[in-house]
Amino acid sequence: MLAEKIDVSAALAEHAAVVEAAIDALLPLPDGFERRVMEAMRYATLGGGKRLRAFLVMECASLFGASVPAAARVAASVEMLHAYSLVHDDLPCMDDDDLRRGQPSTHRKFDEATAVLAGDALQTRAFELLAGLATHPDADARCALVLALAAASGAEGMVGGQMIDMATEGQALTDAQVARLQALKTGRLIQYSAEAGAILGRAGPAAQASIAAYGRDLGAAFQIADDVLDAVGTTEGIGKTAGKDEAAGKATVVALLGVEQARARAAALAAAAAGHLQAFGARADRLRALADYVVNRGH
Amino acid sequence: MLAEKIDVSAALAEHAAVVEAAIDALLPLPDGFERRVMEAMRYATLGGGKRLRAFLVMECASLFGASVPAAARVAASVEMLHAYSLVHDDLPCMDDDDLRRGQPSTHRKFDEATAVLAGDALQTRAFELLAGLATHPDADARCALVLALAAASGAEGMVGGQMIDMATEGQALTDAQVARLQALKTGRLIQYSAEAGAILGRAGPAAQASIAAYGRDLGAAFQIADDVLDAVGTTEGIGKTAGKDEAAGKATVVALLGVEQARARAAALAAAAAGHLQAFGARADRLRALADYVVNRGH
Repeated sequence: MLAEKIDVSAALAEHAAVVEAAIDALLPLPDGFERRVMEAMRYATLGGGKRLRAFLVMECASLFGASVPAAARVAASVEMLHAYSLVHDDLPCMDDDDLRRGQPSTHRKFDEATAVLAGDALQTRAFELLAGLATHPDADARCALVLALAAASGAEGMVGGQMIDMATEGQALTDAQVARLQALKTGRLIQYSAEAGAILGRAGPAAQASIAAYGRDLGAAFQIADDVLDAVGTTEGIGKTAGKDEAAGKATVVALLGVEQARARAAALAAAAAGHLQAFGARADRLRALADYVVNRGH
Repeated sequence: MLAEKIDVSAALAEHAAVVEAAIDALLPLPDGFERRVMEAMRYATLGGGKRLRAFLVMECASLFGASVPAAARVAASVEMLHAYSLVHDDLPCMDDDDLRRGQPSTHRKFDEATAVLAGDALQTRAFELLAGLATHPDADARCALVLALAAASGAEGMVGGQMIDMATEGQALTDAQVARLQALKTGRLIQYSAEAGAILGRAGPAAQASIAAYGRDLGAAFQIADDVLDAVGTTEGIGKTAGKDEAAGKATVVALLGVEQARARAAALAAAAAGHLQAFGARADRLRALADYVVNRGH
């Protein structure tokens, strides 16, 4: 299979460099008495992560011929939204995590109040970027991006998923309930990242649906693979505290089915994700390779 | 002066009822394992407050002939954004306030994690509403509303103001520094509320500038009057903990100039606000009366 020839780590790094520069340019420079919140926004967003969501935006935008600077801007917006969710999730009143990407989490590096505010302002900036003229000449496309990001990340998306995660700690969930939790908590934003590229490129309805299905299955595969890493990885290897899910009694596919079956399910979802890309031919090889990568990575 | 004949409390209540219904209709209904965050969003947003920001949206929209349902939707969006900021500001790591509008603050009624998430999702919903087709048939107007709200509320607006407020506690600020703090922390969102009505009504540049100037001076007058109430009011009378500014060593105009001079400055700003409305004749009488009201209210 062609996709096997692709070095996904290198492709991720290539897009990550572009998006890192975009984030740097698109965040306010620390200044005045309020500089601390701007420093925290930069700390939380710059300098780390695989930039999976940014990769999806950039690759899907490229499939439909969207401009690279516009795609980088939308990718920066998604990464800011994602970073806000991590900053708030790490707070002592939430998951209470001291480490993120091997570094002190934002409230440990700064303080809790600054972390709350930095997360808030990162969310604001994500929407501001999407609505700005530089994102797309057509305001309808910009509104579509705002609406899709809001649906993916609000109470009926990512925030709802985080609420379910906390409300059901220690409870036994069914397979379907775990799938819904994970779809909301992480899947929707990953799916959005793929869809955003298609919106930017003004893809037709059939192509949009294929990309959405790819993003949905990829997101599900990614989350199960992440839970497997939490169960079998070391804190050093994954750059955040390992073994937290089991300690907290979190409902995961690993908890329900065990590591081996969870791995098999992730692989099946990754294959399904790649299967949605048939219509795009060799131009989608990097997206296919990414689906393999997310279930076979070591961190 | 004509404005004196207007019952501002009744006018506020009239718009508040319309906006209350809009908020109720535009927030998700509690359902599923995530229902707690939706309940908290409703608790934080429904059933209280003067709805000053909603009033400004509705009255300014009406000046330019915008539709009432669209104005109510934008007003609901601003109130959700405002409510998110109050929920987060009340958190123990921020202002640590147990009371809001005479009721337990959201983290006291629910818990801290739910309050963080409810605030997050209220912000998301505010932007989602603005970008939705029902707000305005022209997507450029919807993008303009998103951009203006983001500028007013992000790190260079409201969140920046909150950061300054916390970073400078116990420090002596100059008059100009206090004015900037207050402009960012509360002024920008009040100014946006007026401007949003003008954007909805597709006002021309001169009218937009007049409305922006009105909102700016009204917001400054409102905040100084609020600080006076904090200094001289009772907890029962103002529905939140009184005397907190002085106890926390907060920089306010009252702390700088004393109560009497602060009152005089608020009155001068209110008069200046009304002065910006000259071009609109009697149709702006309610907005003029509001300027009087914000500096003469008892709560």
